[in-house]
Parts: sequence; structure tokens; C-alpha cells
Amino acid sequence: MPPIIALLTDFGTQDTYVGVMKAVMLGICPEARFIDLSHNIQPQNVRQAALALLSSYRFCPPGTVFLTVVDPGVGSSRKPIAVQAGDYFFVAPDNGLLSYVLADFAALNIVELNNPAYHLQPVSKTFHGRDIFSPAAAHLAAGTALTALGTPCERYAKQLMPQMKITGSLISGTVLYADHFGNLITSIGELAWEDPHTLALTPRFGSREHTYLINTTRSRIAIGTAQISGIRDTYASVLRGDLLALVGSSGFLEIAANQGSAAEVLKLAAGASVTLEVVE
Amino acid sequence: MPPIIALLTDFGTQDTYVGVMKAVMLGICPEARFIDLSHNIQPQNVRQAALALLSSYRFCPPGTVFLTVVDPGVGSSRKPIAVQAGDYFFVAPDNGLLSYVLADFAALNIVELNNPAYHLQPVSKTFHGRDIFSPAAAHLAAGTALTALGTPCERYAKQLMPQMKITGSLISGTVLYADHFGNLITSIGELAWEDPHTLALTPRFGSREHTYLINTTRSRIAIGTAQISGIRDTYASVLRGDLLALVGSSGFLEIAANQGSAAEVLKLAAGASVTLEVVE
Amino acid sequence: MPPIIALLTDFGTQDTYVGVMKAVMLGICPEARFIDLSHNIQPQNVRQAALALLSSYRFCPPGTVFLTVVDPGVGSSRKPIAVQAGDYFFVAPDNGLLSYVLADFAALNIVELNNPAYHLQPVSKTFHGRDIFSPAAAHLAAGTALTALGTPCERYAKQLMPQMKITGSLISGTVLYADHFGNLITSIGELAWEDPHTLALTPRFGSREHTYLINTTRSRIAIGTAQISGIRDTYASVLRGDLLALVGSSGFLEIAANQGSAAEVLKLAAGASVTLEVVE
Repeated sequence: MPPIIALLTDFGTQDTYVGVMKAVMLGICPEARFIDLSHNIQPQNVRQAALALLSSYRFCPPGTVFLTVVDPGVGSSRKPIAVQAGDYFFVAPDNGLLSYVLADFAALNIVELNNPAYHLQPVSKTFHGRDIFSPAAAHLAAGTALTALGTPCERYAKQLMPQMKITGSLISGTVLYADHFGNLITSIGELAWEDPHTLALTPRFGSREHTYLINTTRSRIAIGTAQISGIRDTYASVLRGDLLALVGSSGFLEIAANQGSAAEVLKLAAGASVTLEVVE
Repeated sequence: MPPIIALLTDFGTQDTYVGVMKAVMLGICPEARFIDLSHNIQPQNVRQAALALLSSYRFCPPGTVFLTVVDPGVGSSRKPIAVQAGDYFFVAPDNGLLSYVLADFAALNIVELNNPAYHLQPVSKTFHGRDIFSPAAAHLAAGTALTALGTPCERYAKQLMPQMKITGSLISGTVLYADHFGNLITSIGELAWEDPHTLALTPRFGSREHTYLINTTRSRIAIGTAQISGIRDTYASVLRGDLLALVGSSGFLEIAANQGSAAEVLKLAAGASVTLEVVE
Repeated sequence: MPPIIALLTDFGTQDTYVGVMKAVMLGICPEARFIDLSHNIQPQNVRQAALALLSSYRFCPPGTVFLTVVDPGVGSSRKPIAVQAGDYFFVAPDNGLLSYVLADFAALNIVELNNPAYHLQPVSKTFHGRDIFSPAAAHLAAGTALTALGTPCERYAKQLMPQMKITGSLISGTVLYADHFGNLITSIGELAWEDPHTLALTPRFGSREHTYLINTTRSRIAIGTAQISGIRDTYASVLRGDLLALVGSSGFLEIAANQGSAAEVLKLAAGASVTLEVVE
């Protein structure tokens, strides 16, 4: 099986930044295969990148190396790191980008990428994606041992968790982002169907002691000026253009408009408040 | 030759949806090579996807598996299907997306993708691209027999044809879409040069009994507020910024502005009327 | 090592143009690996493409074939060419796109791509990217000799150089483009750090007899309504949102806003004037 490198950045696709990183990596690991998870993370939005990685990494084959670069502190004192976790490797600036995904793993091996033999020389102060992170990812993909890349570390930076608050039968959260279709992905999750009328909610970011059961037909969602009744399982379960709440493909509560854009209908974006109430 | 999977979706490139599909496919068929035809089909525009597939599939090598997902009815009763046609495989929701391209083939083998052994479990109700279509495409690319994926079907859904009407010497059609350059691609085609002054028009969507010959120097095109004389063979045949009509690379009549954007000049988009008249 | 083809075009990613070119190339050279440098060069902006190629080509492995198509004169008399230069091959319309990069090489082998045996037949007059350039790139990647593709040429078209003028201690240039982050990349370069307070400026486009040394702490940059003191080495060296001048990853003077968009702050785009003065 050829080695796989999955990329996640805020570099966009207008410039040659992503292409240059791939060029550097193919020079080191010619057999590497690339998966572009996204290059359109909002510039410098570390939390959005952390969520995108969290919702996608488990679909990648074992052995995948993740090259994730959203790096507002490039050239400053934040460390470049690589982490081995389960069957995966993660390469990133140590600014919290990896903190959501690493919480899934019990044992981690972390190194600071400070061995200059594995940097592209001369190392610029403005493009560590090209000069430090890409070479590290490619060497890992080519089979270099993690420990060759630098000094072991004990800790990694944590990113503030998305907010979800449970007070009695009222669950409140925020819109994390609007996707390409205008679906509003919220911080209310993780949700999984138990049966056709019941969702199990296991708060990801906090104590995992409790799982809450939600009767979906008796649920009421408030967001912006809209009140939405019930949680559906398909977009097509309401009329074209109508708003609905459903469980998105990543397990978070999502506000959508069937064949339309909820973001446009509601004129809402990241940060907007949302509440889910189970009516007695 | 490594297996090739060509992707065509409306998923955009902001989110990780496309990357996750590729991750799933590489887990099943590690040697697969991907061609991204487009991920920027207008959301839920099945007809635009059908046209994009029609104009591009024949350039793909024999054996290519097409993974085409524009799926407004995800989770509803529309069937997921895979089709063997000539040297190609097509995987799609059965909503008309494949109907233009399949009209090119005399014999088809169609199956409904209802064998759960070839689904990614658990199957979500909102992302069949990841859970049903990608696994099917990857298994086909890896050599799995079409019939293993599900039950044979007789029919596939038809999409309404683009309109072109021929009345004497007047041919009327519509703008199908504006491309990245602002060229307006119309429903008037298929056109092929017979000699430097003559185009052969073979109506694709209708009776194929007749081929019409068009004297290009005596042609007059009306679109929006513009009258355009003659059909050219190159953009550079008029002054910079001037409008012209020509035969696009897919064989359809196209309205362009040399080194400019006809869509901007004319302030027109998909749906606008266009007529081509051959002057006696 | 699999053959590598690096693509640089103004085709965008909305349409299937790029995918169709890759399909054609995989039909000729199934083992080829693609690097997308960019498909979002501003339509018909040959100079921007020439600069993007110049700043990225050296990161690509030896043997890379560059397929670069920004082609306002498609179908007119401009020649399609392929060039062997050092360890690289370049395939492009002969309109100046290659002139910046080819200035880096002492010896060149150039051919006009006029051997129809290596064209995709029938050759359209509107999409030479598909019909002439892609087959040439794929055949070169597959090992076909350059001379098989057409007739040797002596010359290639030159593109007007970006402007940089040095008058005493005053260096004046222009903004070449704004990148995805809103960083304004200027024509003042090439710059390389000599020590923490000194930059060496070697004018690329003109006489190379002189290298100028610039004291960065005593430098003053004027752009639009802003005055910027000093040239920094990292974005993070100023407060969030503040403007700064630094040496970008391609060696050109760049105006940025830390974690913001200089293009938005200054409301400037390509063509704006910039001056760098070393204060005595």
C-alpha cells in the first residue's frame, strides 16, 4: 500500500503554496499519495481546522500521515511538532490544532521538529509548511522513525473547546461554521441514533460520564428568528426550501434548508447561538 | 495501468467531504488514481452535472470509474446505482445525472447498490457519497464484479433534455451555464466543422435523423441585447473585448468575449435565450 | 520514481477543463503523478503565471514536466512550445509565460509542438491545453524525446519584466498580486538575509552586476496611505492586525498584516506603487 499524506491547511488554492509543499514531499517520498482534506480553512482559524480534522481523520487508512498547517504564529516561539497516535501520524504547529483529535488516543509519542537534518534548508521564517512540516510528513511517510525528527516532548497545546452547555432539558451551543451548502454545523454533539425516535448525546468535550437520550419528535430548536420542531434524519423529510434540524455526517446537530442554504435563509454564520430543548 | 476514479460532485472544496470520500476509497483500493472533474457543480444542479459528465467522459481512459454525486434526494427513496456502459463504470444517485451520458451506449448493465456488504457501516442518511457511492466506486476500481454490489435493474431515471428548437432557418436555445472565463455555453449543438465556412449540427437530444449544415459566415446570433455576425473558430479572431460566437471545446455554440467575460459584458447567466439564424 | 507533471493554468476549478487534461495525460502516461501548482491564475494574466512558475519550479524534483497554460492567443499564430532546461521540461504557449524561468538556465532545447502524431485528434481551436499541451507533457513524462514532438526553434517570446527601479537609496516597485491571505507581493527582490539586520538585494530582472545591501532597521516603506518602518522576518513580530514589511517565501518584499489582510486594510491590489527607502 502506498504511503498516504492527508493535507489540511488555510493556504487556499489561488497561490502555489500547496503545490510547492507537494513538490517538496514528492522529492522526499516519491511514492506518497495525497488526500486534500481542505485548503480552505478560514485564514488563521485554528479551531475550525481542529474540528475539520476531528470529523475526518477516522476515515483515513491506518498509516496515514496528516500534514495540518494553520499557523498564525509562523516564525514565533510556537513549536513545530509531530505526533504518533494509534495508527496515525500528525504533523502540525503546536497551537491547539491537534488537540481535539489527540483526545481520542490514550498513548501519544510527541517530538518537536528540531532536527535540522530533516528541514528544507535554508528554513524561511514565513513558510514552515514548506520548510519544516512538509519534509517531516514526507519522511514519516517514507518510514523514518518519529524520534529521528527531533526531541521528545511531554505536552501539546490545547485549544479551547467548542461550547455546549446542558441545563436540565435545555442544551445550548453555537454555530461552528457554515459548510459549502450553507448548512449550519453546531457545537451540539456527538449525536448518534438509538432508534427512529431517540438520539444519544455524548458530550465530547467535557465529562464523558453521562450519555443523554433525546426524544427527537419532542425536540424544539431555536436559532436566530427560527423555531424548528423535531430532529430529522434526512434533508428530504421537509418541503423544498424549508428549514430542518438533523444530525450531520459528523454527528453534530446541523441546521439545514432542504435544497437551499440555511445560512442564507437565516442570515447567520459562525458564532450564532442555538438551543435544543426537549419538551416534556 | 492503475485503476482510475473520476469524481464529479457539488461538494465544493471548502469542507472535507471530497477528501473523506477519497480516504474511504484508498482504504478499499489503495492503487486508485483520482481525477477531479469538478466539485463545483452548482449545489443540487443535476442537469449541470449531467452535461459536465457528457462533455468530459470520453477523454478518460477505458476502465475509468466515474463517481458522480449531486444528490438533492439523499436519504429519500431515489436509488443509488452503478452502471457498466462500454468500457466505463458510472456510480451515481439515480436522479437523471447519468441519463445524458448513458444515451451514448447501446447496452447497459445496471445494479441498485443495495448490498450492505459493500457499504461503509453505519450508513448515514445524509452522506451517501461517503457511505455508499465511494465504496461502490472503489470496489469496482479494485475489480469487484458489478453484480456483487446489488440487484440488477432495468431502468434509470431520465433528466429533462436541454432545449434546442429548429424552425426553418431559426435555431433557438438557452444558455446552459457560464464557465470560469465567463463564456456562455448554450444548448445549441452538437456542432462540428465540415469546412472553413460550414458547420454540421446534429441535434443530440431528439431525433438523430437529420444533420443540418450551417453557413457560418451567413449566421447571425441574437443573445440579450447583442447581435453577433458569423461563427468563428478562435477567440482571437475578434478584437480584444469584442463579443463573438464560436464552437466550444465540447461542440456547443458558445458566446465569448476575446480575453474578457461575455457573462459580464452581457449580464447574462444560465437560462438566457439565444437564437441562431442562417441568413439567406 | 514515478514521472511528475506540475500544472499551472488559469482554468479555474469550476469546469472540467483541468480534469479533462489529466484524463488525456493518464491515457498516455498512466504512471504520471500530478502536482497542481495553481489553476487560479487571473484569466489571461501571463505575467502572474510567469511569476508563479518562477517562484515555485525549483521546489519540484528533477525530471518534473511543467504544463503551464495561460493562453489568451489560443488558436492564433502564437506557437505551442516545449523546452528542456536543466533537469526540467516546460510545455506552454510561446507568449512569454516561460521567459522568467528560462532566464535561470544557460542552455535550452526548444521545439515547436508541430508534430501532429503527438496531438489529440481532431485538434480544436479553442482548447490546446487538452489537444496539444497535455499530450506533449504526458509524452515527455513517459520518456519520449523532446525532438520527436516537433521542429527545433531558436527563440522564445519574452514577457515584460516586473518593474523595480533603484535611484540612490530609493527603490521603487509595484504590487504584483495579493495572495490568498491578502499579503501584497511586490516587485522588489530578490532579497536574502545576510545577517539579522542586513538584506542583500540582487535585482533579478536587469543587470546582475550589483548586489545592494539594505539595513533593515533603517528602512522605510511607503505604500498607499501607509508608512512602515523596518523590514521584519516574521508576521508575528508586530501586533495582531498591524501592517509590516517582510521578505516573503519567494524572496520578494511583501506587505502583510499580522493575522489579517493587508490588501483589505490598505484597499490596494496589483499595480499599486511601493517604495523602499534606506534612511541615512
